[in-house]
Amino acid sequence: MMRRIKYPAKADWQELVKRPTQHFEDLEAGIAQTFRLVQEQGDDALRTLTQQYDGVQLNALYAAADEIAAAEAELSEELKAAILQAFSNIQLFHAQQAEQPKQVETMPGVTCWRKSVPIDRVGLYIPGGTAPLFSTLLMLGVPARLAGCKEIILCTPPGKGGSIHPAIRYTASLLGIDKIAKVGGAQAIAAMAFGTDSIPAVNKIFGPGNQYVTVAKQMLSKTGVAIDLPAGPSEVLVIADESADAAFVAADLLSQAEHGADSQVVLLSNSADMLSRVEQELQAQLAVLPRREFAAKALENSLGILLSNVDEMLAFSNLYAPEHLILSISNFEEVLDEITNAGSVFLGNYSPESAGDYASGTNHTLPTNAYARAYSGVSLDSFVKKITFQHITPAGLQNIGKTIEVMAAAEGLEAHKNAVSIRLKEVQHV
Amino acid sequence: MMRRIKYPAKADWQELVKRPTQHFEDLEAGIAQTFRLVQEQGDDALRTLTQQYDGVQLNALYAAADEIAAAEAELSEELKAAILQAFSNIQLFHAQQAEQPKQVETMPGVTCWRKSVPIDRVGLYIPGGTAPLFSTLLMLGVPARLAGCKEIILCTPPGKGGSIHPAIRYTASLLGIDKIAKVGGAQAIAAMAFGTDSIPAVNKIFGPGNQYVTVAKQMLSKTGVAIDLPAGPSEVLVIADESADAAFVAADLLSQAEHGADSQVVLLSNSADMLSRVEQELQAQLAVLPRREFAAKALENSLGILLSNVDEMLAFSNLYAPEHLILSISNFEEVLDEITNAGSVFLGNYSPESAGDYASGTNHTLPTNAYARAYSGVSLDSFVKKITFQHITPAGLQNIGKTIEVMAAAEGLEAHKNAVSIRLKEVQHV
Repeated sequence: MMRRIKYPAKADWQELVKRPTQHFEDLEAGIAQTFRLVQEQGDDALRTLTQQYDGVQLNALYAAADEIAAAEAELSEELKAAILQAFSNIQLFHAQQAEQPKQVETMPGVTCWRKSVPIDRVGLYIPGGTAPLFSTLLMLGVPARLAGCKEIILCTPPGKGGSIHPAIRYTASLLGIDKIAKVGGAQAIAAMAFGTDSIPAVNKIFGPGNQYVTVAKQMLSKTGVAIDLPAGPSEVLVIADESADAAFVAADLLSQAEHGADSQVVLLSNSADMLSRVEQELQAQLAVLPRREFAAKALENSLGILLSNVDEMLAFSNLYAPEHLILSISNFEEVLDEITNAGSVFLGNYSPESAGDYASGTNHTLPTNAYARAYSGVSLDSFVKKITFQHITPAGLQNIGKTIEVMAAAEGLEAHKNAVSIRLKEVQHV
Repeated sequence: MMRRIKYPAKADWQELVKRPTQHFEDLEAGIAQTFRLVQEQGDDALRTLTQQYDGVQLNALYAAADEIAAAEAELSEELKAAILQAFSNIQLFHAQQAEQPKQVETMPGVTCWRKSVPIDRVGLYIPGGTAPLFSTLLMLGVPARLAGCKEIILCTPPGKGGSIHPAIRYTASLLGIDKIAKVGGAQAIAAMAFGTDSIPAVNKIFGPGNQYVTVAKQMLSKTGVAIDLPAGPSEVLVIADESADAAFVAADLLSQAEHGADSQVVLLSNSADMLSRVEQELQAQLAVLPRREFAAKALENSLGILLSNVDEMLAFSNLYAPEHLILSISNFEEVLDEITNAGSVFLGNYSPESAGDYASGTNHTLPTNAYARAYSGVSLDSFVKKITFQHITPAGLQNIGKTIEVMAAAEGLEAHKNAVSIRLKEVQHV
């Protein structure tokens, strides 16, 4: 089960917050080969690789319109209602992130503003495998639509029979995404980065995936194609005092642990008794979980740490910079300003992480692996560029001109100075 | 001079917007060696490398307090006034970018918001060389201060005598930055990324530099340290119709070209006469520029393109995605919504790029090399993380619980479902 640590010295914290290192360098040569193949052979390469990796002979790369439309009848009313509710909440929350241009006259006649402009073409990757992550499609598709991205491409690997899970098709349809390419893995990333006859090259690629997808996205950094976030295994840190409910805490830890053996789970408490009770609950709840093998392995790499008080727990959490932070403490309202590093924060005993994973409205694509020290999760901002504009009147240039000339000259950039001087001469002649 | 192209076919545009490829892979092994040296030997490595590359024997790595304070007396009143004016304008513009948390109740009892939290520690790199880029220090330091970053480290290589240009010291002092490390190149990036006894490891590194600095920053992508933007040579695209002033346009093109031989300069016009007049002006103005050798080389790689109308010019510009876009056209106000890809836009005949480079208030750290298709320039946002929060009441969980349970079950994640179910049971018992 969890590794138990009592009152670690501050000097040891740095070691405790380290995530297990992942080495994927071995994969790079193979992925570079996939990139070359897709660049050289385009759609043919996608067909060959899909046959090879997914065992599917693709005729059309894209799901047909009737295939997408059929999803509606394939899902239960209950699931459709749930997806619609989540869609609505996510839309409501992300719509508030829209920024209106504010004109600022920094000096008389010098007016500046910035404007959010959608990224033209974005690519969304949704992994296949056992769990059809339609929730991730909502988390990426809703802000892409709200931002106004002109073209949204969805790539997802086909299932054994060549079809795509109905929940993915239904969600895509709800989002107005009609381009679902049945392509997965590094070849999907290559197709969206470089373009093929069928799949247009996009400006930014979003979405989770296995290590091939993760490394492929990372390898794009030199190509000019942006990615959402550097990726790592998902993680949660729970801060629990005596007021916490041990069964709830254990359930939250397990909901993270079931993602996979490499998930990171950390429990901090100022109560040794709470730590023990959570451990007992973990044992009991784990026994009946369908994914208990994944969860048990994840727990083996996880930490239960006893600390002296809430301040220490927050300090440790800030150093760890968790993707998800759950505050199961009585005075959470008083300590909100002390949280400096986290992806998304869940407050009190009735705000489980799974609420944010699915339906409360916040995004679940978040910085892992301590990236929360410098990165934000996906939001509406991730789908726009903020372009600055300025307009200077002749009188404005007379106000600001001298400042520019003096600074440019001091930096030894005479042509920069001259671009102002030549205009000022003209203005003075008028 | 510029390469002249008349009415290129749309099929050829993709080729025309390509930047000259830069290959820096050869530098990576040497930089990796510098990284190792700094990680192993810390401050000693910084002293050795500064001796080697800058010819300076450092005693203290940091500029002394009296050295910083002395700058005030070393600058002209005129330059200090200019820096203060620019500081004030940049502050005014960036202060407007602050986002206040807005609580959204997505369902009754389910409240979500996001909050901007400063990045704890940031590192600013300012290159040395002939031009002391105190303007870049303003562009990075002002938003870092406004964001509230707790620790700001400035690295800049020392001049021949071991001192730092007074304009850099003065600007740092104005920004309240008292940690000026006399370290440059890849060793400065390594120090800020990995930390030494004297220089703390930072969470994000900002600032321009030569190819060693650029590649060093790029190599950090796997280490968890964030960087401001991927870098490339600076560039401007000017759209000029008959209403433009050829002398102003030439001055703007030259202000970009003087940055260096690899600067990118593009002029679009729907008037062959305007193109010719700008060429004549370029010749005349170039002849008297101190940095004419750089500028002449940059112009050789540059393009003057004749297109049919404003719509075509905007379409070409959007495909090119310039760092700086100058609209010297009479109806610029009517076409603002057609601009989809650009870093910063300058409107009309009296808004030279150098205004934004120095003093109008907008930031001059902008996406080059077509990164403007997906990236924004540096802003207040670059110095914060936007952390989401949520609080759900027991009644709120009753409202949203079913949605989460149904979605989690459909994704096969029973522990996610259970984190809700276990709480709902408790609520129903109350």
